[in-house]
Amino acid sequence: MNAPDKAWQGSFDVPFTVEFGECDPAGIVFFPNFYRWFDRATHGMCAAAGYAMPDVRAHRGWVGYPIAEAGARFLKPATFDEELVLRTRVSEWRRKVFLLEHRVMRGDTLLAEGWQTRFIGVKLPEEGGRLAALEIPDHFREAVDALMTASGTAR
Amino acid sequence: MNAPDKAWQGSFDVPFTVEFGECDPAGIVFFPNFYRWFDRATHGMCAAAGYAMPDVRAHRGWVGYPIAEAGARFLKPATFDEELVLRTRVSEWRRKVFLLEHRVMRGDTLLAEGWQTRFIGVKLPEEGGRLAALEIPDHFREAVDALMTASGTAR
Amino acid sequence: MNAPDKAWQGSFDVPFTVEFGECDPAGIVFFPNFYRWFDRATHGMCAAAGYAMPDVRAHRGWVGYPIAEAGARFLKPATFDEELVLRTRVSEWRRKVFLLEHRVMRGDTLLAEGWQTRFIGVKLPEEGGRLAALEIPDHFREAVDALMTASGTAR
Amino acid sequence: MNAPDKAWQGSFDVPFTVEFGECDPAGIVFFPNFYRWFDRATHGMCAAAGYAMPDVRAHRGWVGYPIAEAGARFLKPATFDEELVLRTRVSEWRRKVFLLEHRVMRGDTLLAEGWQTRFIGVKLPEEGGRLAALEIPDHFREAVDALMTASGTAR
Repeated sequence: MNAPDKAWQGSFDVPFTVEFGECDPAGIVFFPNFYRWFDRATHGMCAAAGYAMPDVRAHRGWVGYPIAEAGARFLKPATFDEELVLRTRVSEWRRKVFLLEHRVMRGDTLLAEGWQTRFIGVKLPEEGGRLAALEIPDHFREAVDALMTASGTAR
Repeated sequence: MNAPDKAWQGSFDVPFTVEFGECDPAGIVFFPNFYRWFDRATHGMCAAAGYAMPDVRAHRGWVGYPIAEAGARFLKPATFDEELVLRTRVSEWRRKVFLLEHRVMRGDTLLAEGWQTRFIGVKLPEEGGRLAALEIPDHFREAVDALMTASGTAR
Repeated sequence: MNAPDKAWQGSFDVPFTVEFGECDPAGIVFFPNFYRWFDRATHGMCAAAGYAMPDVRAHRGWVGYPIAEAGARFLKPATFDEELVLRTRVSEWRRKVFLLEHRVMRGDTLLAEGWQTRFIGVKLPEEGGRLAALEIPDHFREAVDALMTASGTAR
Repeated sequence: MNAPDKAWQGSFDVPFTVEFGECDPAGIVFFPNFYRWFDRATHGMCAAAGYAMPDVRAHRGWVGYPIAEAGARFLKPATFDEELVLRTRVSEWRRKVFLLEHRVMRGDTLLAEGWQTRFIGVKLPEEGGRLAALEIPDHFREAVDALMTASGTAR
C-alpha cells in the first residue's frame, strides 16, 4: 500500500468514541479492536445502502460479507475517550470480491489505515453447504457507490 | 451468595493463562472477560460430558446453553501472564434450568466467583422459532454430575 | 432483584445498534457483551458528569471505577442490527461504593437488566500500590445525580 | 505474500480449541479473533523465550510489543469446538522491528495465515513519553530464535 491518498473523493464516515475496555495495559487500543471497528463500519455501510445483514440473510439467502484478506498499518496510537472518525470506502469492485479501505482519523491526523477483500457469501446446498462467493449484483454495487459519491456521509 | 464454601467436593477445573489483551489500562482483567471465561468453562464442561455444542446442535436440535441470570463478585484483581485455575460445578438441577458456580483461583486464593442460571435452548417451530427451555434430560444431568464427583478434573 | 420498576424517574440513556460480531452462532448477543455495554454506559455517564477517565486519571489520581459485584438477568434475546437503548441510573450511594442499575430496552420492551457495585479506585503507595476504594466525594455524587434528574438524557 | 511455504523449519506451536463465543451468526470465527490469537501466540512465544510481558515491563522498561503492520489471509472457515494449532515464527529480524508469521492449522490443512511487523516499545521521557522502537537486543533475538530451531515447540 502506498502513502495515504489525501484526496479521497468520498467515503462512509462513522464518528465514535474509544472505550476504556478496548485499551490494553499500555493504555492504547488493543489492535484486534481496529478490525472490529472495520467490521462495524462495513456492516454499517452495507446497511445504509439498503443491505442490512438481517435483511439479506432473510430475503436474499446471503450469509454475510466474509473476509478473504485483510491488512492494516498502525501509525499512531489511540487511547480511550478519544473521539475519532472511521472512514470507509470501496476502492475496487471485481467480479466476485470488493476491496474496502478504512481510515481511523483523529481530526485530520491519520492513526491507522486498513484494507480488506470481502465477498458476498452464499451457501451451496449442492456442495454440502460450502461457503462460496456470489457474483456481485449491479444493484448492490450501485447502492454502495451512491453512498461514496457523497463526501463524508455520517451515520 | 454466602461466603465461599471452601469444601467444594468436586468441580471441573481448567487451568489457563491471563492474556495481555484481556487486561485494561489499569493493568487488570477487564471484567467482562470473566464472563467469557465462565462461558468457556461451561462449554468445556458440557463437551467433556459428551455434549459438545456442534454435536448437540447437529444431532439433538439444541441451540445451546443460554443464560437466564448471571452474577459475579470480584475479590482481588488478576493481571496478564498469571496462571490461574477456573473451577466450575453445577450446584443445583431444577426441572428446566441448572445453576452453575465458578471460581477463579490463583493457587489457593479466590480472585472471583460467579454463578449462572442456564437452560438447554430449543426452538419451537410451532411458535415461530421462539427460544424455549427443554426439560433437562436425566442422561445430561448424570453425565455432568459424573464429572463433578471426581475432585478437580482438569481438561 | 424485584420485578423491574417501570417508574424510573431518570436515567442516563444511550442508543446503540447491536453489531454482527457481538452475536454468537445462535444468532443472539453473546452475553458477556452485555457487560461490555454496561461498562460503556458507566464510563459514558461519568464522562457526561465531568469525570471522564483520562481526566480523573491525570488530574485526580483515580485509576478508574472498578467493579466489586455485578449481576444481570436476561429476559429476551437481542440480535444484530437492532437499535436498542441502554438506560443507566445510580440507585444508591454508600460511603465508598455506588450501585448502578442498567436496562437494555427495545422500545418499551425490557430485554435485560443488570446491576453493579462500583467504587472509585485509588492506589495506596504506602501499601505497595494496593487498589483501594476512595470515600466518594460529594461533588462526584452531585454531578452524577444531576444527570439522573433529567428524564432520559441521551448522549 | 506468496503461497504458503510448506517447509517451515521451525515454529512455536500452540494447540487451542475454538470457543463458541468466538464465532459469529454465520457459525464461523469472527475474523478479529484471529488477530487476538496471533497476539496470544506472540506473547506466549516471547514468554517462552524468557521475555514475559510482566517481567520486561517491570525490569527492562519495555511497554510491550506494539504492532506497526499486520495482515492476514483467510482460506477456510473455522468453527467452534474445533481443535486447531497456531504456528508462529519470526521470519525476519531488522534493526528495530521483527516480522512474524502465523498459521492456523486444522491438522495439515491451512485455514488462515497472518503476518505482523512488531517492535519493542519503549517510552521516551525526554519526548513527553512518546512511544518509540528499541534497537532489538541480540539476547532477545537469540532467545526467540532458539525456540524456532526446535521443530514444533508446543506450549
